[in-house]
Amino acid sequence: VSTPLVGMVGGGQLARMTAQAAIPLGLTLAVLTSGPQDAAASTGAPMIGSHISLEDLVAFAERCDVLTFDHEHVPPEHLAALAEKGYRLHPGPDALHFAQDKQAMRVRLGELGVPVPAWQPASGPADVARFAERYGWPVVAKAVRGGYDGRGVWVLADAAAAAELLAATAAIDLLIEEYVPPRRELAVLVARSPRGEVRTWPLIETVQREGICVETLVPVADPPPAAAALGDRIATALGVTGVLAVELFERPDGGVLVNELAMRPHNSGHWSIEGSRTSQFEQHLRAVLDWPLGETALAAPAVAMANVIGGVDPGVCARLPSVLGADPALKVHLYGKEFRPGRKLGHVTALGEDLAEVRRRATAGAAALVGDRP
Amino acid sequence: VSTPLVGMVGGGQLARMTAQAAIPLGLTLAVLTSGPQDAAASTGAPMIGSHISLEDLVAFAERCDVLTFDHEHVPPEHLAALAEKGYRLHPGPDALHFAQDKQAMRVRLGELGVPVPAWQPASGPADVARFAERYGWPVVAKAVRGGYDGRGVWVLADAAAAAELLAATAAIDLLIEEYVPPRRELAVLVARSPRGEVRTWPLIETVQREGICVETLVPVADPPPAAAALGDRIATALGVTGVLAVELFERPDGGVLVNELAMRPHNSGHWSIEGSRTSQFEQHLRAVLDWPLGETALAAPAVAMANVIGGVDPGVCARLPSVLGADPALKVHLYGKEFRPGRKLGHVTALGEDLAEVRRRATAGAAALVGDRP
Repeated sequence: VSTPLVGMVGGGQLARMTAQAAIPLGLTLAVLTSGPQDAAASTGAPMIGSHISLEDLVAFAERCDVLTFDHEHVPPEHLAALAEKGYRLHPGPDALHFAQDKQAMRVRLGELGVPVPAWQPASGPADVARFAERYGWPVVAKAVRGGYDGRGVWVLADAAAAAELLAATAAIDLLIEEYVPPRRELAVLVARSPRGEVRTWPLIETVQREGICVETLVPVADPPPAAAALGDRIATALGVTGVLAVELFERPDGGVLVNELAMRPHNSGHWSIEGSRTSQFEQHLRAVLDWPLGETALAAPAVAMANVIGGVDPGVCARLPSVLGADPALKVHLYGKEFRPGRKLGHVTALGEDLAEVRRRATAGAAALVGDRP
Repeated sequence: VSTPLVGMVGGGQLARMTAQAAIPLGLTLAVLTSGPQDAAASTGAPMIGSHISLEDLVAFAERCDVLTFDHEHVPPEHLAALAEKGYRLHPGPDALHFAQDKQAMRVRLGELGVPVPAWQPASGPADVARFAERYGWPVVAKAVRGGYDGRGVWVLADAAAAAELLAATAAIDLLIEEYVPPRRELAVLVARSPRGEVRTWPLIETVQREGICVETLVPVADPPPAAAALGDRIATALGVTGVLAVELFERPDGGVLVNELAMRPHNSGHWSIEGSRTSQFEQHLRAVLDWPLGETALAAPAVAMANVIGGVDPGVCARLPSVLGADPALKVHLYGKEFRPGRKLGHVTALGEDLAEVRRRATAGAAALVGDRP
């Protein structure tokens, strides 16, 4: 049995769930993981190594037919070196650049005529003050590279806060952008294969708390007309291969602005494991192998996902049986990660006829797992 | 993170799919497998060893919190020895006895008043002839122990065939039973936990060819009224823990007879991976851990599964992309097993509104994978 070996750089929950999706396709997922404590270290075929070591990356690429990624933190110069040596990378360095560098992304999207929040590089306190004169306080500051899950993002209330942040982050590149009080936050999830096939999932509402996605809801009532086509347009223009998540702000007037891009399976798509005919993890594998993509229709009229985020009380695993007992139709996903407050430890999906009802069930299950009293 | 370690004896596709189901529950499945070529050897945590070696079984049990099985071939004396040493086995030896010994199963079901085909031990050609006088030819002969997937079952056309079989199988125990020309073959799939919770999936029609299940269809039109309750009744009476599959013949008059029992995830339940809110593999894990069982409702109005059974042409994996392209909503499961004619290499599931349509799609997908022209 000769099957291609897909290698995923990174051993977190995205790699874990991709490894799960590889099994029915008759594939094994190789993962480059930092150690046995990682979520994906016990699934697929792990190789212990570092994503910032070119030597480890080359050794890993050498055993795989195609390389893909569960995060954006491989140094761009290593991506270029791997491509130069002829390894197949999906997404490739040219596309990944726009997921790694928020400034480059905003410039490119602007060229494409895709709406983004007003922004500019943050070169000094005077710049920020001038920007705030035009767009008002608060102003959002973002690290150009390396941020994720709310890290590397700051909401600046006033000039003093701006000065303090700029002093504290003198060594890193920042950009500033207008604070958009969104009506809703949305996500468009698509996959694109090297041959150019694109499939789009139904539009997703994401509920954020402190910069972290805590819930997703599908379908979206009254979807803004401009949203759905953005995924295909951006994936095709940037040459993305694999899954692309486009995070959107919806303005009160129904217009949408692109907030962030991620070129990998994404938290906004975890609901698709049970909620879509093809999960984002299966689709990502099909895309990076340049296989035909799967149907993205909903598998139920309403799907809600709630993240299981570590609270004060460990013992999430110990609470699992009682949570399963309280709602026998709930689908719980635990990532096998060590407990830490604020850490994403799993997610819970509920499917049904009514979005309000499945939302209530998913959030109740997630809260019970982390030990919150309702 | 302290989670229980479930160990499954056997490394076939049932263990492979159970390992897949273990991932979202935050569990790792340990498998006792004969070698790296096994379907489950690349999933979960494999230990190479033999299911007929008590030493290997004890070493495996020593690392696991609970033991379960992907086949019925562990010698009964080893099961008894493991239970005696205090290891947790689910199902336990007392229940498994009725899955391993067809004669004991028929005696016990008879005591329970569960309808089975007329049968008797086959002690000699004269017995078979007398039985045929009463029930007619053909007569079905079965090995009391060790048969599976059509092996160990013979349909005897006449006295000469009976004499020939008995001469050829003098070393093994046989039973004979009436040949029941079924209206349909059906299966009741249930799971039962040690605490006594039982959940039953919707009734399944199984389509057999040469003693091998080739298709399953859910739901069953005009289900025989007696069928649904049989699973719970048998599981409870026999003290089964984990999944129990009850294979049934439906007589033309709508009555049902129990044909076989399997105390593990079963081919008749593969459709449940996408087709039920809880798959048989997840449910088996929950049951053997004595966790609350999951909802067994259908996830779609109609679900059809077709087995991928090796034909003359290898290259099943090479045909996968084109099969995925021909029907983007098809769910393909390949087991990572080496090609061999007649071997179960995978299965294909289609979900939709109309049973005839999903059946056509599933069988078309399976046929295309094995290289059959439509």
